[in-house]
Amino acid sequence: MPRRVRIDLAYDGTEFDGWQVQPRGRTVQGELERALSTLHGGVGVRVRGAGRTDAGVHARGQVADALVGDRFSDRDLHRALLALLPDDLRVQRVLGVDERFHARHAAIAKTYAYYLDRSRCGDPFVARYVLHTPHSFDEGAVDAALALLPGRRDFSGFAGAACEVTDRVRSLTEARREVVRPGIERLVFTADGFLNHMVRNFVGTLLDVARGRQAPDRVRTILESGDRTLGGATAPARGLTLERVAY
Amino acid sequence: MPRRVRIDLAYDGTEFDGWQVQPRGRTVQGELERALSTLHGGVGVRVRGAGRTDAGVHARGQVADALVGDRFSDRDLHRALLALLPDDLRVQRVLGVDERFHARHAAIAKTYAYYLDRSRCGDPFVARYVLHTPHSFDEGAVDAALALLPGRRDFSGFAGAACEVTDRVRSLTEARREVVRPGIERLVFTADGFLNHMVRNFVGTLLDVARGRQAPDRVRTILESGDRTLGGATAPARGLTLERVAY
Repeated sequence: MPRRVRIDLAYDGTEFDGWQVQPRGRTVQGELERALSTLHGGVGVRVRGAGRTDAGVHARGQVADALVGDRFSDRDLHRALLALLPDDLRVQRVLGVDERFHARHAAIAKTYAYYLDRSRCGDPFVARYVLHTPHSFDEGAVDAALALLPGRRDFSGFAGAACEVTDRVRSLTEARREVVRPGIERLVFTADGFLNHMVRNFVGTLLDVARGRQAPDRVRTILESGDRTLGGATAPARGLTLERVAY
Repeated sequence: MPRRVRIDLAYDGTEFDGWQVQPRGRTVQGELERALSTLHGGVGVRVRGAGRTDAGVHARGQVADALVGDRFSDRDLHRALLALLPDDLRVQRVLGVDERFHARHAAIAKTYAYYLDRSRCGDPFVARYVLHTPHSFDEGAVDAALALLPGRRDFSGFAGAACEVTDRVRSLTEARREVVRPGIERLVFTADGFLNHMVRNFVGTLLDVARGRQAPDRVRTILESGDRTLGGATAPARGLTLERVAY
């Protein structure tokens, strides 16, 4: 009898065309399904992910699930996946779960972080995972703008053009700035769900606020109007990491 | 009148064919000389580096020098180089120095660190800068072997085949293991100079000691015999970083 496993993943998204399998292109789901299929003698294995990260977006705590053959223990599967998968896609844990577990539907919250390198020169060792912003940065204004975001509300004003869902009400429970180490900061967001490009659009507007191009209150105007054109440009994918999925 | 500047550099060596300019291939020296030449209206500018790092080796504290035109201040040069150079090669400082300064000849010591990811799964965010060694690791044996290395001695037994120098006596003043954060360690070596592949050959033998394939005392045998064939395989370039050059 096949059984369901939960697979926790970390990846450097730089050289992936995002999570979701595509006809062409290297994707996280595609690499994972290929490795699992190899383990099952070529029989196709389908993987479901908690968050469909875009091209170039990273993950420290992505969660997937799959139905696997019962001849592998969790430990065997973990070892085999570590051996089969590349350096930029690592399995952190394999855990047998109830067959009804669904990585996306069962998730109650996700946390994304957007990393900024505020050093003047830029650190080449984290360049793939940060946005380098050696510009003036009004910390008080950014923090004031972040404080306006949390709540249960319609986030249409921060949804990307490709967003296909009609119900755009989400509960954002965390939006804060944090120093990781000297020069490196992150903007951390937790919600029960995120719309397409939502975090990158938050960050684009927050960077305008940081540079004094917009007042912090612009966030309120965007939320109330639902007008995406009032916000800053979508921040690049490279700075974004899916940190955690909570169940 | 041209004047001499010291240029401090950090780079991710993954996509460089080493420091030294080659007919083909992307090199650190080549990128830097190209940027400086652009700033001087196409006139060739020569750069000298403290350490000629191999392909794939990284640097946090490489030092170079160059003769530049007197119309640029240190600050102007720094800003222009940051704008012209790619994300994986960053200038940390530009400093006017005595015209007799020579980045290599004036160096009194260099420190290299070799990074190990000892976590079982491997961290994809540092995979380019570490060697993943999820194997058994006898810390006491490694520390005992490291303790045998320092001193003023002939390091022929750890020199690579491409080593062209005949005087192979160097003063190694530091050889120790250090925990960077949970799962990540580094082996740190400081000397007045290093032979070709010397650190990577130290590490190859130390990894044999870590796995119990050799006793710590093997280090002494290699040093005394000068016989490179008694040591472990040369460790991969990816784990090695030039940390500091002292003047």
